[in-house]
Amino acid sequence: MTGCNIFFKCENFQIAGAFKSRGASNAVFQHLEIARHKGVATHSSGNHAQALARVAGHSGVASYIVMPENSNPLKIAAVQEYGGNIIFCKPTLQSREETLQSVISETGAIEIHPYDNTDIIAGQATAAKELLEEIPEPDFLIAPVGGGGLLSGTALACHYYSPKTQVIGAEPLNANDAQQSFRQRTFIPSVNPDTIADGLRTSLGKYTFPVILNHVTDILTVSEEGIIEAMKQIWLRMKIIIEPSSAVVLGIIMEHPERFRGKTIGAIISGGNADIFKLPWNEK
Amino acid sequence: MTGCNIFFKCENFQIAGAFKSRGASNAVFQHLEIARHKGVATHSSGNHAQALARVAGHSGVASYIVMPENSNPLKIAAVQEYGGNIIFCKPTLQSREETLQSVISETGAIEIHPYDNTDIIAGQATAAKELLEEIPEPDFLIAPVGGGGLLSGTALACHYYSPKTQVIGAEPLNANDAQQSFRQRTFIPSVNPDTIADGLRTSLGKYTFPVILNHVTDILTVSEEGIIEAMKQIWLRMKIIIEPSSAVVLGIIMEHPERFRGKTIGAIISGGNADIFKLPWNEK
Repeated sequence: MTGCNIFFKCENFQIAGAFKSRGASNAVFQHLEIARHKGVATHSSGNHAQALARVAGHSGVASYIVMPENSNPLKIAAVQEYGGNIIFCKPTLQSREETLQSVISETGAIEIHPYDNTDIIAGQATAAKELLEEIPEPDFLIAPVGGGGLLSGTALACHYYSPKTQVIGAEPLNANDAQQSFRQRTFIPSVNPDTIADGLRTSLGKYTFPVILNHVTDILTVSEEGIIEAMKQIWLRMKIIIEPSSAVVLGIIMEHPERFRGKTIGAIISGGNADIFKLPWNEK
Repeated sequence: MTGCNIFFKCENFQIAGAFKSRGASNAVFQHLEIARHKGVATHSSGNHAQALARVAGHSGVASYIVMPENSNPLKIAAVQEYGGNIIFCKPTLQSREETLQSVISETGAIEIHPYDNTDIIAGQATAAKELLEEIPEPDFLIAPVGGGGLLSGTALACHYYSPKTQVIGAEPLNANDAQQSFRQRTFIPSVNPDTIADGLRTSLGKYTFPVILNHVTDILTVSEEGIIEAMKQIWLRMKIIIEPSSAVVLGIIMEHPERFRGKTIGAIISGGNADIFKLPWNEK
């Protein structure tokens, strides 16, 4: 269909449904002794919350998860099922950060940021490392980019294990702050992005951006229609459930075919936590 | 969730999206010389049509597929894409059979029945054989039953490779002709079955029924609500797309938990050709 050979790393099959379990596990395991005394804390409404609550629960570590009060009830239930302590806040970044700080002052818990944390980046890098063990030296490795945890980890894995591979970030056109930041070599924040790829709305971080600047080849964008079409093709042809944020990796190939024709590509499917009760192709 | 260990054989990932490719391939390969001269023919509106058209196309064999004129346009397109010659007929069994006979008289093509054919049964048996190579001697092996091609093949594979394993057929309660036939030891046809599991509406055949009588332990049924719930759980938890006819294997476990508690089970997911534009949990 695309004229190239694509090998997908299927993190939709990962524990808790997304690559986030890699970083969360590494972050907890790196600080296990302190974490067992004080706990870990984060603010997240998405996959990171579930991943952190789960690994903490399995490791005898208390977890404090600050979630906006309007979070998806399924995600709230999943965090609770994993044993996470949820502290609700107002749905603004300010309220999330203030609530998290007060939880940390009270408990002494270690803050585990969803992406701007070197333990998280190192953990996310293992997805690309495993892909390279199966598919050595692909021409390209593509990962979605939101806050940049997965993309910076992917780029570091390529730097050490497959330096000839070009690393490409895939981003929604409607949330193209990372592409702008990358091309202008200066940090540009994400402001009210309007994209179905809800995992990719965040801004780059102070740890992730420099790694991306140094080790990523380019960042390409895909339209909203392109994201939905790519998601549909993966559902129909591969028979796997992926979330919209994962579809960008195929989306950029479909919208920039001349760049990838005839090449061997590794592409990271970031997660499978799609809302199967509300699918984009049924909403017209 | 079920209190037992279930290992799924994921034929939704099979070529053309269903186990049907196994039987169709074996049937064509067993008669390749004649097939190359005369072609192969069948009537089917479903997965068998695609599977046969595909393997024929790859083997230099002409295929003649009789399809009801009201067939799903996606399935018609798939058969055409694989190079099948479609002959449309009226949507009745009589018209299907008459049209097929006239195609066979004209062309001399070999008829490949979707399930009541020993080459087809032997081909479908390879799914269970592969499962048993990975999971030796499970307590139970469960397969859906419609016409009985997959179930009879599964039962034969168990008979030869894992004789202690109990083989269970899974059937919609609303299309329980196979359970009735099995328990009364006399053939009872399927009459106007009303089930979402569209692959399981057919009656047993003259080759499949005796194998099932001799080598299957029991046939259990599941309600329509149970099929939809099992399908939803597999989509949500396993992140794979399966069709309703495949969900019966988990459905019978969920509706007969006492029968399976603590056991090791192999279960065959028959296919992934679900209509993602019209999902049962969005139709209420």
